[in-house]
Amino acid sequence: MTAPDRGFTNDEFASRLAKAQAAMARHDVAALLLTNEAEIRYFTGFMTQFWQSPTRPWFVILPATGKPVAVIPSIGAALMRHCYIDDLVCWPSPAADDDGISLLASRLRHSLSNGGKLAMLRGRETALRMPLGDYTELITRLGSVELYDMTTDIQQIRMVKSPAEIAKIRHICGLASNVFSTVPSWVQAGIPLDEMFRQFKIRALQSGVDDVSYLVGAAGAGGYDDIIAPPTSRPVMPGDIFMFDTGCVWDGYFCDFDRNFAVHHATDAACEAHQKLHDATLAARAILRPGITASDLFTAMHKSLHPNGSPHSDGEDVGRYGHGLGIQLTEPPSHTSWDQTKIENGMVLTLEPSIGYGDGCIMVAEENVLVTLDGSELLTQAAPRDLPIIAPNPS
Amino acid sequence: MTAPDRGFTNDEFASRLAKAQAAMARHDVAALLLTNEAEIRYFTGFMTQFWQSPTRPWFVILPATGKPVAVIPSIGAALMRHCYIDDLVCWPSPAADDDGISLLASRLRHSLSNGGKLAMLRGRETALRMPLGDYTELITRLGSVELYDMTTDIQQIRMVKSPAEIAKIRHICGLASNVFSTVPSWVQAGIPLDEMFRQFKIRALQSGVDDVSYLVGAAGAGGYDDIIAPPTSRPVMPGDIFMFDTGCVWDGYFCDFDRNFAVHHATDAACEAHQKLHDATLAARAILRPGITASDLFTAMHKSLHPNGSPHSDGEDVGRYGHGLGIQLTEPPSHTSWDQTKIENGMVLTLEPSIGYGDGCIMVAEENVLVTLDGSELLTQAAPRDLPIIAPNPS
Repeated sequence: MTAPDRGFTNDEFASRLAKAQAAMARHDVAALLLTNEAEIRYFTGFMTQFWQSPTRPWFVILPATGKPVAVIPSIGAALMRHCYIDDLVCWPSPAADDDGISLLASRLRHSLSNGGKLAMLRGRETALRMPLGDYTELITRLGSVELYDMTTDIQQIRMVKSPAEIAKIRHICGLASNVFSTVPSWVQAGIPLDEMFRQFKIRALQSGVDDVSYLVGAAGAGGYDDIIAPPTSRPVMPGDIFMFDTGCVWDGYFCDFDRNFAVHHATDAACEAHQKLHDATLAARAILRPGITASDLFTAMHKSLHPNGSPHSDGEDVGRYGHGLGIQLTEPPSHTSWDQTKIENGMVLTLEPSIGYGDGCIMVAEENVLVTLDGSELLTQAAPRDLPIIAPNPS
Repeated sequence: MTAPDRGFTNDEFASRLAKAQAAMARHDVAALLLTNEAEIRYFTGFMTQFWQSPTRPWFVILPATGKPVAVIPSIGAALMRHCYIDDLVCWPSPAADDDGISLLASRLRHSLSNGGKLAMLRGRETALRMPLGDYTELITRLGSVELYDMTTDIQQIRMVKSPAEIAKIRHICGLASNVFSTVPSWVQAGIPLDEMFRQFKIRALQSGVDDVSYLVGAAGAGGYDDIIAPPTSRPVMPGDIFMFDTGCVWDGYFCDFDRNFAVHHATDAACEAHQKLHDATLAARAILRPGITASDLFTAMHKSLHPNGSPHSDGEDVGRYGHGLGIQLTEPPSHTSWDQTKIENGMVLTLEPSIGYGDGCIMVAEENVLVTLDGSELLTQAAPRDLPIIAPNPS
């Protein structure tokens, strides 16, 4: 597979910033303070696994006009200098008492000096990646500034992917699809689940993914009951159903999909569950186009899975039937009964119906799709309708 | 290498909880609310890569007496049920309006009904992994409860590792050391840096690590100037110095160390920098034993690196000369001039001196050590004093 270009053009960052600043202007926001990896990367291009270290806080301010301002630990200066920023303020972190808060307050005061609100992301699916005590101190120092929550605006901007973002997600979906296609050739009864995970990761890296940042799954006789656990060392056995769910990454963008397999044979209930999930995915794709809502996708899948109704109003324990995808493994919207987000051209979504069956088993199927002007494009190589069965090794 | 057992005994979780509850009693804390992966795993054993998904908040309460209480999304119930908890409260998340806050408030009110403070981690190196808006709502609903910051107490407990934790860290340090030892056998001039990263990850997985969660590094003629960047596709050239810095993971525990290499030849300045870093590490190990402070370690390394003084008071741009290590890539303490944390038997630390040289180059060396009763044990296979030089391929 030919890989797309890495990174983004300055035009792309300018376009992202313009959308954010237009939203800021609508809400009279003079400065938007970002503390999280995803948004800081989205607006500046600052990409590093150093976020794994929780020690240091990182701050980026989007001002009302002009490029982003970075207020960051010195250790990140060399990398941030090449990013889409106008102004770089650094301090040696960790610091004894004041870990960037005075610098940040001073820079924010500058942005807020002509009035206007201070915005942050305070809503659904966000976190505050700085010490809560430092946040309280910052707000106290800023005095009477009016706070504003721009979660919805920023999520709305990020949900619609650019052609360059789509190219990266398409690439990683293709790479991971290739890895999944090899599974029947190397999984046999008797292989411990954790060894299967290790093999999957190695093959994914060999196929060209940058990182296997997320790999969960499970195996069990007739089915599994947990979809987020790390693997055990139990060998898979004839009659097991096993599932891998992976978020592989290429140039900072995720795929997120899974595949189910049976070892040697499967119960009718498991085969039927797999078909139902496949049909639910088709039901979603049948209506998927700009103008519908995430809730419409949920309803289409839920009706397909439970034509006679279901006691679960929101898709079993998973809570939803899919979500957005991009810099993060999971992004808005959520395919639930209540999410009225309008689907737009350029969104990348997972379709992820799940169903309970048998004695406490659950099965999840997941595909990744791009919303196009008149429908959708599957970014993953579709799972078959029939549960794939790994045949015994001829010996 | 023989791997230690995975997981922890209930006795170990009971011991961790007892220490936390003793600290809570000292401060009249009736409930400690945890929102972050590391602490939730430390006190319950709940381990999953699902934390990669930012969508759902997770809450664990340590009550004044009794085992932890989990208030979590239903998708985690199957996994949490096997963890060290007494009580499990779930809701289907993401939810339309109230994503666990009513349940959490109710369960906290129960713990707080006989008085006492509500503690959280609000200090250095922490974050609030829930929406800030939901946090504000929660505190409002709880009314007049007194808040308390237990960051220092919990970090103090986590800093001293148990024998089972040490076994895991020793194992991952050994595995990663083995991978580093192979580097000269497969790196040659002409290999792109990103391909070297890919090879390193594959070899690490083949050697038995669970995940290569962190791999950063750099290469440049005569040296590098950035220590947290993702790799470029530029081939390494004769005269380059390159560095890998990895946080590999085994059963949820990190190593964190790096290695420097020269391709074909190196400048005197680079060779000298490598020797200075090695000597600084020895200077730290010479004084390392229970009873000294993290600041003592900093001072020993700083004096070794800069016998005639230095304009940098806190170790160049990195901000410190090492840190703690465990569930997280970086944990307290920080080897800085100001960190007066007393070093104790059972702590696992990195020694990570860095030095600037030449025209804006930086070099970082890192080893991982266990503090023992009478000194320290190196967990990594020590880097040599002389910068390793990768010889030209005989052709």
